[in-house]
Amino acid sequence: MKKYIYSFNGEKTEGDASHMNLLGGKGANLAEMARLGIPVPPGFTITTECCNAYLRTRGDYPKEYSGQFKMAMSLLEASMDLSFGDPDNPLLVSCRSGGRQSMPGMMETVLNVGLTSGTIPGLIKKTGNGRFVYDSYRRLIMMYADVVMEKAEGIEAGKEGGIRHQLEKILLEFKEAQGVADDADLSEAHLKEICVQFNARVKKVLGREFPDSPQEQLEGAIGAVFKSWNGKRAKSYRRIEHIPAEWGTGVTVQAMVFGNMGETSATGVAFTRNPATGENTFFGEWLPNAQGEDVVAGIRTPSPINEATKRENTQGVQSLEMSMPKAYKELEAIRHTLEYHYKEMLDIEFTIQKERLFMLQCRIGKRTGTASLVMAMDMLEEGLINKITAIKRVKPHQLHELLHPIVDPSEEGRATILTQGLPAGPGGAFGHIAFTSDEAVELAKTHPNVILVREETNPEDIEGMRAASGILTARGGMTSHAALVARGWGKCCIVGAGDIVIHPSFKKMQIGKKIFNQGDILTLNGSRGRVYEGKLNMVDATEDPRFQAFMTMADAYRTMGVRANADTQADAMVAKSYGAEGIGLFRTEHMFYNAGPENPLFILQKIILSDTDSERRTAIHELAPFVKREIKETMKEMDGMPVTLRTIDPPLHEFVPHSRAKQLELAEALGVDLNEIKRRCEGLQESNPMMGHRGVRLGISFPDITEMQVRAIFEATAELVKEGHNPQPEIMIPVTCEVKELVFIRKIVHQTCDEVTRQYGLAGLVYKFGTMIEIPRAALMANHMAELAEFFSFGTNDLTQLTYGFSRDDAGEFIPTYLDENILPADPFQTLDPSGVGELIKIAVERGRATRPDIKIGICGEHGGDPASVRFCFQAGLDYVSCSPYRIPIARLAAAHAAIEASESPFNVREKHAIPETPLCPPFSMVHPGHTSKPPTPI
Amino acid sequence: MKKYIYSFNGEKTEGDASHMNLLGGKGANLAEMARLGIPVPPGFTITTECCNAYLRTRGDYPKEYSGQFKMAMSLLEASMDLSFGDPDNPLLVSCRSGGRQSMPGMMETVLNVGLTSGTIPGLIKKTGNGRFVYDSYRRLIMMYADVVMEKAEGIEAGKEGGIRHQLEKILLEFKEAQGVADDADLSEAHLKEICVQFNARVKKVLGREFPDSPQEQLEGAIGAVFKSWNGKRAKSYRRIEHIPAEWGTGVTVQAMVFGNMGETSATGVAFTRNPATGENTFFGEWLPNAQGEDVVAGIRTPSPINEATKRENTQGVQSLEMSMPKAYKELEAIRHTLEYHYKEMLDIEFTIQKERLFMLQCRIGKRTGTASLVMAMDMLEEGLINKITAIKRVKPHQLHELLHPIVDPSEEGRATILTQGLPAGPGGAFGHIAFTSDEAVELAKTHPNVILVREETNPEDIEGMRAASGILTARGGMTSHAALVARGWGKCCIVGAGDIVIHPSFKKMQIGKKIFNQGDILTLNGSRGRVYEGKLNMVDATEDPRFQAFMTMADAYRTMGVRANADTQADAMVAKSYGAEGIGLFRTEHMFYNAGPENPLFILQKIILSDTDSERRTAIHELAPFVKREIKETMKEMDGMPVTLRTIDPPLHEFVPHSRAKQLELAEALGVDLNEIKRRCEGLQESNPMMGHRGVRLGISFPDITEMQVRAIFEATAELVKEGHNPQPEIMIPVTCEVKELVFIRKIVHQTCDEVTRQYGLAGLVYKFGTMIEIPRAALMANHMAELAEFFSFGTNDLTQLTYGFSRDDAGEFIPTYLDENILPADPFQTLDPSGVGELIKIAVERGRATRPDIKIGICGEHGGDPASVRFCFQAGLDYVSCSPYRIPIARLAAAHAAIEASESPFNVREKHAIPETPLCPPFSMVHPGHTSKPPTPI
Repeated sequence: MKKYIYSFNGEKTEGDASHMNLLGGKGANLAEMARLGIPVPPGFTITTECCNAYLRTRGDYPKEYSGQFKMAMSLLEASMDLSFGDPDNPLLVSCRSGGRQSMPGMMETVLNVGLTSGTIPGLIKKTGNGRFVYDSYRRLIMMYADVVMEKAEGIEAGKEGGIRHQLEKILLEFKEAQGVADDADLSEAHLKEICVQFNARVKKVLGREFPDSPQEQLEGAIGAVFKSWNGKRAKSYRRIEHIPAEWGTGVTVQAMVFGNMGETSATGVAFTRNPATGENTFFGEWLPNAQGEDVVAGIRTPSPINEATKRENTQGVQSLEMSMPKAYKELEAIRHTLEYHYKEMLDIEFTIQKERLFMLQCRIGKRTGTASLVMAMDMLEEGLINKITAIKRVKPHQLHELLHPIVDPSEEGRATILTQGLPAGPGGAFGHIAFTSDEAVELAKTHPNVILVREETNPEDIEGMRAASGILTARGGMTSHAALVARGWGKCCIVGAGDIVIHPSFKKMQIGKKIFNQGDILTLNGSRGRVYEGKLNMVDATEDPRFQAFMTMADAYRTMGVRANADTQADAMVAKSYGAEGIGLFRTEHMFYNAGPENPLFILQKIILSDTDSERRTAIHELAPFVKREIKETMKEMDGMPVTLRTIDPPLHEFVPHSRAKQLELAEALGVDLNEIKRRCEGLQESNPMMGHRGVRLGISFPDITEMQVRAIFEATAELVKEGHNPQPEIMIPVTCEVKELVFIRKIVHQTCDEVTRQYGLAGLVYKFGTMIEIPRAALMANHMAELAEFFSFGTNDLTQLTYGFSRDDAGEFIPTYLDENILPADPFQTLDPSGVGELIKIAVERGRATRPDIKIGICGEHGGDPASVRFCFQAGLDYVSCSPYRIPIARLAAAHAAIEASESPFNVREKHAIPETPLCPPFSMVHPGHTSKPPTPI
Repeated sequence: MKKYIYSFNGEKTEGDASHMNLLGGKGANLAEMARLGIPVPPGFTITTECCNAYLRTRGDYPKEYSGQFKMAMSLLEASMDLSFGDPDNPLLVSCRSGGRQSMPGMMETVLNVGLTSGTIPGLIKKTGNGRFVYDSYRRLIMMYADVVMEKAEGIEAGKEGGIRHQLEKILLEFKEAQGVADDADLSEAHLKEICVQFNARVKKVLGREFPDSPQEQLEGAIGAVFKSWNGKRAKSYRRIEHIPAEWGTGVTVQAMVFGNMGETSATGVAFTRNPATGENTFFGEWLPNAQGEDVVAGIRTPSPINEATKRENTQGVQSLEMSMPKAYKELEAIRHTLEYHYKEMLDIEFTIQKERLFMLQCRIGKRTGTASLVMAMDMLEEGLINKITAIKRVKPHQLHELLHPIVDPSEEGRATILTQGLPAGPGGAFGHIAFTSDEAVELAKTHPNVILVREETNPEDIEGMRAASGILTARGGMTSHAALVARGWGKCCIVGAGDIVIHPSFKKMQIGKKIFNQGDILTLNGSRGRVYEGKLNMVDATEDPRFQAFMTMADAYRTMGVRANADTQADAMVAKSYGAEGIGLFRTEHMFYNAGPENPLFILQKIILSDTDSERRTAIHELAPFVKREIKETMKEMDGMPVTLRTIDPPLHEFVPHSRAKQLELAEALGVDLNEIKRRCEGLQESNPMMGHRGVRLGISFPDITEMQVRAIFEATAELVKEGHNPQPEIMIPVTCEVKELVFIRKIVHQTCDEVTRQYGLAGLVYKFGTMIEIPRAALMANHMAELAEFFSFGTNDLTQLTYGFSRDDAGEFIPTYLDENILPADPFQTLDPSGVGELIKIAVERGRATRPDIKIGICGEHGGDPASVRFCFQAGLDYVSCSPYRIPIARLAAAHAAIEASESPFNVREKHAIPETPLCPPFSMVHPGHTSKPPTPI
């Protein structure tokens, strides 16, 4: 017979924390606590399977349910020595939801179930506390009418709002009329009167009497909780969090304990450690004479539970520690027991009924990235967890916080969002507005903090972007120029803030009705895409001294290499400091954006726009020493480590000048007229430049440019060798689709290498020759590509574009719809598509290795810094990932996680916190001998 | 011991026509003729393997060569009863090249080898014809000095030109000085004097004496022929024709026979049937008292060989038939023997030495498309070949000629090419120039022939393109808008003629230094991309009455379906007349280009540029009846056959107006101002529109447009059913990459079908739902796509773009270089890439069928009409190909060829004309009892 109901109480507890899928998080952890002897009000959990059956049949329970339910209620009544609906000795229960994964506030709860005209007098008599009983009753009416009678029935709110809103209004007006400020100051008579008004309003609005039968109340409450799984909020949340609809929720029916039984009663929530900082101090809030919902709902302001966590503004209030020292000590003990047992920081809910402590919930607590790392290292030192667990405790993306200054969360919480855009570069920044690159550079000379605000950015804005603390654009997506550059530099950046209307010529911009001038101050939260007016303080994400230790520990488990995408010596330095083991992508064209006194971009423009071979050759000759120097400096910085140098990649049109002034300057330098320059620039325009004349196609059309780049690499290498260094250049050809392209380029490389070797009087030069795999055909032809290529590097940005046929510059028009409609599980430019793009990668790896078993294979797209994508790369057998310097720690940790996961397979599907770790948890009684596993004394 | 030399003579012939690869075409066919007893001067062929060895070692022969060569020379001397270099009885030989595949004029030949101061007197004495001997000697000097002493040594021509040019000049000046018009009128003394002058010039220019040793001459000649395989001309030709360098050439050394021995001697070339028309008449030219080179080189004008083929301008000259009736009759007999033996039309060379006929060469003759078809059908009727051979004789691409009027080849031969572009639309056209679409329409009202000349075309030019006889653009590639539209209509079109500078506002254009005005006349050869000034006549490619019979015969062998890409009822009619078995691609957006009084494009523009949902809905409502009517008419035309209707595909920006006038009109219609319309149009612009917001992405963003299109299809279907027709709609979704896109659209389709079914009171509607496979990811995910798709249609244009990362609009910048450098074997937009794109197709077919075994799979890209691609589609197991109506016969024939080839496998690698067919060839002597297999009488 299938079991749909699992009881937990002092006598008998069925299920434990490992039953998360069946009982939901709340039910499973209540059972676990009961097993540990922690005081938990007895009850039972109806399984998620029952929920699914109920929802599938639109309201029918499995046939086994009824018998099991009666049995569980009897058990509960027996353990409480109370009887549900009994006029003299009534049991009250709560009905609470609990999914496999926490969905805070998304589903429903009904408390105080069982209060009726039949049970109220007996309960008053028994407790001698009429105020408490009517307070509980008015809570029941509010919750029940809302959750069961209105929402679960699908009744839409009328003009005057939902029933809950109307009842709250009655309560408010009543308090005003009586001159009562706080709920706690309402008398028994007040509350009784309120209940009368509530019942009348319920009947009027919902057309039927508030149910006065305990059984009807209970049935209604259970059904309503089930139905709330398919409520609007729950459904949207599931879509966002990718929680399958098939999981369902459990319902926990539990004996009520009361925090609202007077001044010796209380309720609260706490974290076993500080979830913001990770500090090992007990951290929580409480309210005397209240039920749990009051804390969560923010109706009354709760106080800190202990003295240690009091802040400036809470010095005057009473802590639980001081008010109820005995209960607090007990709570402290339970805190240790739970942490010792779960080996985790927990988020707990408790109620104190007449000085007696009960635990109502425990779950793994959410925390910041900093806190994750601190707790992991602390618990490792405490011997609570082992190294592998410590490493797994920090999610790679949480490291973002540690790597960038952020807007002070407390200030941000109070500030009003001015507008929003896409979170393109992480961290926070504030500064004075500049509307052009030149202005930004100028302003930065006198003001340390500048925010560059542009319609969108292009390579000519580079100087301004570098000078600015933050970048804000009105257009562009997550992979637009601004976003790419900003992330590469680890700079705060928000793109595509569509509300902004910029008038650069007037040095003004408009957001909504507000006008901002040059020099006005903005604050950006680049991690969330939020823009604020004025200055918010930054929190310097102080590098935890244990950050390095943590990363070193993680590295010991990592098997895949991590390199950086870096284009300058400065980038290379940063990359090394973050632990890069080489450069996986040096974009040779990026040096041209560097408008120093040599103005290399200008020379490049001359090369591109020259009309004759001899003009071009002259310009190439002029550029060569600059290229060599840049390459040499970077290789020197990375001495002894591989540096992958990609030959020219973007279409030439990207380099030519757009402004009239720069075109004129070029026209003069080339001795042709402006119209001719314009004509030549326009001639380079393409319909679909992404698929146009670029990469190796340029390298083949203009072999002299290829030759110049390759010569610069070899000369730099030769000079470094002669200077006693150990350069390891890897020449990488982009945008290939056919091995014969490599044959063509390889010939130039060979010949140039021979010439340079002779020229420097060396015996030979050590280098690797390889190709990007970023065109679907190159992946399919990888067996041929590997005939010449000694390494592959997946350019997953382009590979994703071509595999999907999505232009990343244009996909912003439809990807949001695709995500909303669940057509795509994630933006494939953020997280590597494992099915389509992933298959091409797997094909290429397999075929490449079939031809050349020792071929080195990596990835150098934006995905190299995305944890899920790093995991995929590991599974696909790649040798390394390469990402922007600021993402290197993230990639290192993600790679360590992937390796650990693989070593743990096939067990990695088990509930992590259910896996006992040494030392095994001692029984609760050993730690707290005062506690027994007996149920709480019935009220 | 490896055999490097194969002899042929009356006594002993080694090798035959099947030794084509080893002996080259010339050698193999000479051996074959010798075996047939046809009079062939004896000789031997040095193999292509020897050539390769010689070239590889830069001039060394394999060690076996020397012995074999001596033996072969002895045999030759013995069979001729002459001796090479013998002063009294000298043998003269020719050295001729011969590759596996004919490379006309690309390699070298040396005749009359063996004439020296030692052999000349004896030969004069023996023949009593000093004039002949000195004529032969001056020919030897000219050829040998050029081929062996200059070219083979790599000596570059000086200021006065190459040695041949200088010797020709001497000859010419001599004739002028002597007042002699024709070579034949030079006397012995003249020729002797010329030889003296020649020898002097050779020494002066080339620095050494003309060799006077027969052995030296022969060695030099053989080596020079080998070297000519790697000559400049031969290499370029090989690159163009994709002939591997490894094939090498054979050298045939053969006893000289002399057509220049006086008036009873002659030389000529002939085709066994008319190669232009296919007519079964003997067709050739001859010259009395000449050597073969004179005919080929065009120094003298040859005469028709017989009376039957005399034309107006050759009525006065002597035919061989009349001049030498005996030799002619013998030639006629050989003609029949060869055709009977080879079952083919042959191209032959002959020499008559003192009334005695010798055959010097035979090979399969080149022919026009018309001739191919006529000959195939004639030979089938004659019982010479069977049906399969007849079908294989016509190459699919040759049908082009039969389907379009062409420029009269004889006129074109004389005309000067004005400029060239890409051959985008086949056939020929002449007409008056118009520079705008409107002008073209206007001009066409008074002049039947108009050539529309545009910078490039866009949908707004459609009317003008339709009105014009031919289209010429200065920009764009083979798949540009103009090219696609023109080919779809079977219209003559040249695109990308970059030399043209157009000034539409001045109604002028410039080509080089020439100015053309509106109304001037041009002629286009769209099959070759050539533009001529003025009018050249067109030849109406008269439909051979046997064309239909031929196609029907081919269809009997065809197993793959052929459908048309057709967007209107008119297209559908044409398609049916060419044998389409359905429509494989109806582009629903094409109807909008049809600027009739309803102006659907304008309504569509309103839909696209409307700002509110209600505006859009109104416009959609307005458009719906028009869409339904167009679809209904086409389905009615194709009654009983499947019609695949593709939902909207191109990015919206393609539809919006570009001209100020049209934008203004739209602004008024929508009640907004011009700037707003401009802004909305610009808002639709994309960086890479090919990969942007298009196809199913639009269908998902604007479900109401999808719904309208689908409803139109179903309503048209319902109405046709009610009218007693049998419509077979297939709804096809473009640009998909993920099955969930199909899920989204499928829901709309289902619901709309249900609604229409109810609305028309029908029990149901029969239709198919399917998808294009044109995105690499869709191919990879084909197993999932097939869960919903009942058919796949490969959009190989886009699939090629994305698989290669080539934008077809931009690839013109580098594809020519790629073809020149042999990086690509062919333009992948012309011929389907079997490796990369092909693998994706094979993957999709396999995975699609794994999910849905009866899934119907076709192709609807431009490749559907390319024979090599059709062959690939057959091999990949596709059910049908779809192409533009005018290509249907080509696709039908290509599909028949593919099926035949498959049925013949594994024998299809054998030399086709070497496979004997019933009836077996009788021995030559049976037909011509007068002939024996004896060698010719020695001279």
